[in-house]
Amino acid sequence: MILLSGGLDSATTAAIAAKQGFGLYALSVDYGQRHRFELAAARRVALALAAKEHVVLAVALGQLGGSALTSPIEVPKDRSGDQMAHGIPITYVPARNTVLLSLALAYAEVVGAADIFLGVNAIDYSGYPDCRPEFIAAFSALANLATKAGVEGRLKFHIHTPLIQWTKAEIIRRGVELGVDYGLTHTCYDPDPAGLSCGRCDACLLRRKGFAEAGLADPLPYQG
Amino acid sequence: MILLSGGLDSATTAAIAAKQGFGLYALSVDYGQRHRFELAAARRVALALAAKEHVVLAVALGQLGGSALTSPIEVPKDRSGDQMAHGIPITYVPARNTVLLSLALAYAEVVGAADIFLGVNAIDYSGYPDCRPEFIAAFSALANLATKAGVEGRLKFHIHTPLIQWTKAEIIRRGVELGVDYGLTHTCYDPDPAGLSCGRCDACLLRRKGFAEAGLADPLPYQG
Repeated sequence: MILLSGGLDSATTAAIAAKQGFGLYALSVDYGQRHRFELAAARRVALALAAKEHVVLAVALGQLGGSALTSPIEVPKDRSGDQMAHGIPITYVPARNTVLLSLALAYAEVVGAADIFLGVNAIDYSGYPDCRPEFIAAFSALANLATKAGVEGRLKFHIHTPLIQWTKAEIIRRGVELGVDYGLTHTCYDPDPAGLSCGRCDACLLRRKGFAEAGLADPLPYQG
Repeated sequence: MILLSGGLDSATTAAIAAKQGFGLYALSVDYGQRHRFELAAARRVALALAAKEHVVLAVALGQLGGSALTSPIEVPKDRSGDQMAHGIPITYVPARNTVLLSLALAYAEVVGAADIFLGVNAIDYSGYPDCRPEFIAAFSALANLATKAGVEGRLKFHIHTPLIQWTKAEIIRRGVELGVDYGLTHTCYDPDPAGLSCGRCDACLLRRKGFAEAGLADPLPYQG
């Protein structure tokens, strides 16, 4: 079972899970993100990786507010690596990965999948608290207490985060080895109405830096 | 901040939180439950308790299947106490309380509430794994790792479950003391199209037993 956002990290994680022999049950969550183009990217990636099933579940986190990703708050642009390294930015969505993993857990229990793959990364990332190993460990503990399948011992849930200690360049190199077509993915937080990436938000900057460091060309076009 | 289902337990929990001086930010989740009448009950309870805000968030857990509460699977009727005491019934919704608490956490972080009230009960209950104290403790640990407000130390999240070790009769007596109007609540898993309670599902049976043991009349009418 894989949480598939449609971005670079989750596409790579899905390819890693497939390579390990797991059948892919993919879940994408429409949480009101302004970069909803990533949901179309998730469909393309699920198709390319021959997922057994791809479910898109909607939950309007934007109704709660509090984030530049779901509310009419400006997405920061052109931040330096130093700026990104300090503090949690306004693009943080309150409790997002807790919500996403809880939905993944529900889906995993229904399809009988003990292995939940998540493309979080704690190296080249935006400083979100719910991308760190200690968060993942706490959720794993919770998962086995929270579910009928866990309590009855039918499934021992395990949250796999193969990318968590990799740089973006390492992620991209591994993905390319596995045949991931990064032209299918979507990364930008603030695309134009046609879906074209801005190239300047934290997510675009981390992606472009990753391709540059990997010595590879990013197949995505950018604005300007 | 209170998770308000519209049932007897969450109404009592809300009254307890109000009595303790907390302003009530109420969240109800439309997860595709067949007993959607409880959402109207939640509105009535929020109004009666003068909640500062009441948000209803939709997430279609029924899309995932796996439960008699969200799928066309028959709700068990007329089960004995012994039957209820053994095993987790088909009305279990995969990872429901994990999903509900994760949404509560998102909402609590946005409104700046460190105290999350939840009306779970591990005595007169249906055997759900996500109603037990060890589940609540695991979620509390997670909450403070998962959030910007938790990591930055602005909020120390605490999950309050005042009813967790009470019998249904104790819950009802306390609620009546606090002036809760149980005629506003909805409990039945399988109401008729007009919203009239069946009186025979686990939830109805536990409620009716609770009123009987408390020596009080249940203000709700039942079918038949």
